[in-house]
Amino acid sequence: MREKFLRDVIRKIQPGNAEFESTAKRHLDSLTKPIGSLGQLEDVAAQYVAWRQQDSPSISGKAVYVFAADHGIVEQGVSAYPKDVTPQMVFNFLNGGAAINVLARQAQSDVFVVDVGVDAAFDGLKGLIDRKVRRGSRNFAKEAAMTKEELNAALQVGIDLAEEAEKQGRTLIALGEMGIGNTTAASAVAAALTGLPASQVTGKGTGLDAERCQRKVEIIDNALRMHFPERPSSFPDPLEVLRRVGGLEIAAITGMVLGAASRRIAVVIDGFICTAGAAVACALAPDARAGIFAGHQSAEPGHRILLVSMDLKPLLQLGMRLGEGTGAVLAFNLIDASLRIYNEMATFESAGISKAGI
Amino acid sequence: MREKFLRDVIRKIQPGNAEFESTAKRHLDSLTKPIGSLGQLEDVAAQYVAWRQQDSPSISGKAVYVFAADHGIVEQGVSAYPKDVTPQMVFNFLNGGAAINVLARQAQSDVFVVDVGVDAAFDGLKGLIDRKVRRGSRNFAKEAAMTKEELNAALQVGIDLAEEAEKQGRTLIALGEMGIGNTTAASAVAAALTGLPASQVTGKGTGLDAERCQRKVEIIDNALRMHFPERPSSFPDPLEVLRRVGGLEIAAITGMVLGAASRRIAVVIDGFICTAGAAVACALAPDARAGIFAGHQSAEPGHRILLVSMDLKPLLQLGMRLGEGTGAVLAFNLIDASLRIYNEMATFESAGISKAGI
Repeated sequence: MREKFLRDVIRKIQPGNAEFESTAKRHLDSLTKPIGSLGQLEDVAAQYVAWRQQDSPSISGKAVYVFAADHGIVEQGVSAYPKDVTPQMVFNFLNGGAAINVLARQAQSDVFVVDVGVDAAFDGLKGLIDRKVRRGSRNFAKEAAMTKEELNAALQVGIDLAEEAEKQGRTLIALGEMGIGNTTAASAVAAALTGLPASQVTGKGTGLDAERCQRKVEIIDNALRMHFPERPSSFPDPLEVLRRVGGLEIAAITGMVLGAASRRIAVVIDGFICTAGAAVACALAPDARAGIFAGHQSAEPGHRILLVSMDLKPLLQLGMRLGEGTGAVLAFNLIDASLRIYNEMATFESAGISKAGI
Repeated sequence: MREKFLRDVIRKIQPGNAEFESTAKRHLDSLTKPIGSLGQLEDVAAQYVAWRQQDSPSISGKAVYVFAADHGIVEQGVSAYPKDVTPQMVFNFLNGGAAINVLARQAQSDVFVVDVGVDAAFDGLKGLIDRKVRRGSRNFAKEAAMTKEELNAALQVGIDLAEEAEKQGRTLIALGEMGIGNTTAASAVAAALTGLPASQVTGKGTGLDAERCQRKVEIIDNALRMHFPERPSSFPDPLEVLRRVGGLEIAAITGMVLGAASRRIAVVIDGFICTAGAAVACALAPDARAGIFAGHQSAEPGHRILLVSMDLKPLLQLGMRLGEGTGAVLAFNLIDASLRIYNEMATFESAGISKAGI
């Protein structure tokens, strides 16, 4: 039995509207182009129309939420970067100098930086959304990453921000993250959800060499054995996966995907870490899937596997592996393009053009 | 021996500037992100800097050139659409109702529609660039698609427009096309350039069924046997390929790639047809390759093969198969993003962030 706050959100999540979807497909087929010739742009438009239930779909209030947290698992030496980089990058985000700031400016998107669990005292830092649950998750090689209370608090961060986003009139948001060590947590979540061995879902993160990557795999496999001794013969509960081997920012992302889905806000997920959070959300509420767009598929092997398992096709594959929401914000332009196509193209009838007919 | 006008253009084409390229790579590595973590965005920025030879690279005067022409080969029944659609789509472009118009508006790009050989009398139609060489190329199943004079005239169209583009201060342009039957010409060009059988480089175009697609393959193979009896034991001259089995818009694209390269204007190529034109240009002047970006890889099998042969990695793979320049113009945003990253991101030093060092 889920906690009440979670049941309340999940209950409100409905699938995409099938009637709007077929109307959208008919409209797309009436436009002056061979049927289906705009490929994924057409799929995106149909999905957005079905999700937003609008005849003339539009986007308002684009924003990216960058969830930052630290990870106890870095004690095991799983990252190429020292833990200090998490708070340093938070400052960089607030100063507008990070990749996500640059890409958000281009996409005319707001940027919200959310401290869910950075291991640093920011002391009321201006511009930072302070929702710190704990100074970093626990080392999941030794114990559960979070207590139940901590998990719930982190989920609530995302749920609250989704409510806020709706009040601000946002219809399309991107999710991103920053947290040294978080590809290790995401790999553990991916392995636990899919039942695959860590070796199949673990990559070099921001730049491990082969030897340290192998060590990362062993750490994850050992942790999974400890936390889920019944695995792989039975699948663990997704919330327990999140709590034991996830991270605070991953849990906030799960909460925000659920909260956004309950309000029919469309969500673009970024890389592997975001997708892990979204995968937990979809495991809890499969209908949430209809509101999700995959911005970019990274080089992390677990990312492709999770996307396939969720039947999500990425809009971009540029070999990026940065996170922060960069891949999601880059995809805003493609979603915007797909809706402009939907709203602005001439139809065969209006333009007086012959349809295929030989 | 090439004609003088062509030798004059080719002689001016220089490779990318290696010094600017290494400076660009050093700069990219100093930005606040793990090395290489922005993947292709970094490659694009370095290529653009090396091509434009600018420390602070910028884009001005974005434009897409849509070259329209008809193809005698449609007499053989190689297209799902009647030939009338070519002029009908020209009207649609001029009225702003086609996909390329919508995407160009989004990308803040000008659109130029160039009649190189549409089989229709447009009578001074407003907004159309009238450079008609002939009302459609000849049926290459029976004779060469063009005479030498026609080929030269079509090449000159592109060369002239590149000169014009430079005068207008354009640094980045996209190429597109419209011409019922032109995937057949592009497949024939691809087969002739690569030495592959038509079956490996021919697809369903805008929507042929399997049987008619098979017929298209046979028509191309027969034509190649007739025009190039020495094939595949020796490779035919690329200009002869263009003349015998190409098309007027493909030749204009070849000319524009060469002209742009001689003026260091960067070019984004669109789909299979554009890439065939660009492949001929690179066969004539290999250094032109350094100024080319591949916007989108379509589902046409020959397209992937040509891109690989030119060592070009597409920025997008959205399953589109429309042409018009749509994939190229969609990629404008990604090139713009890569230059913003290059110009606007903080460095490790300026942001006071630790580099990887474990």
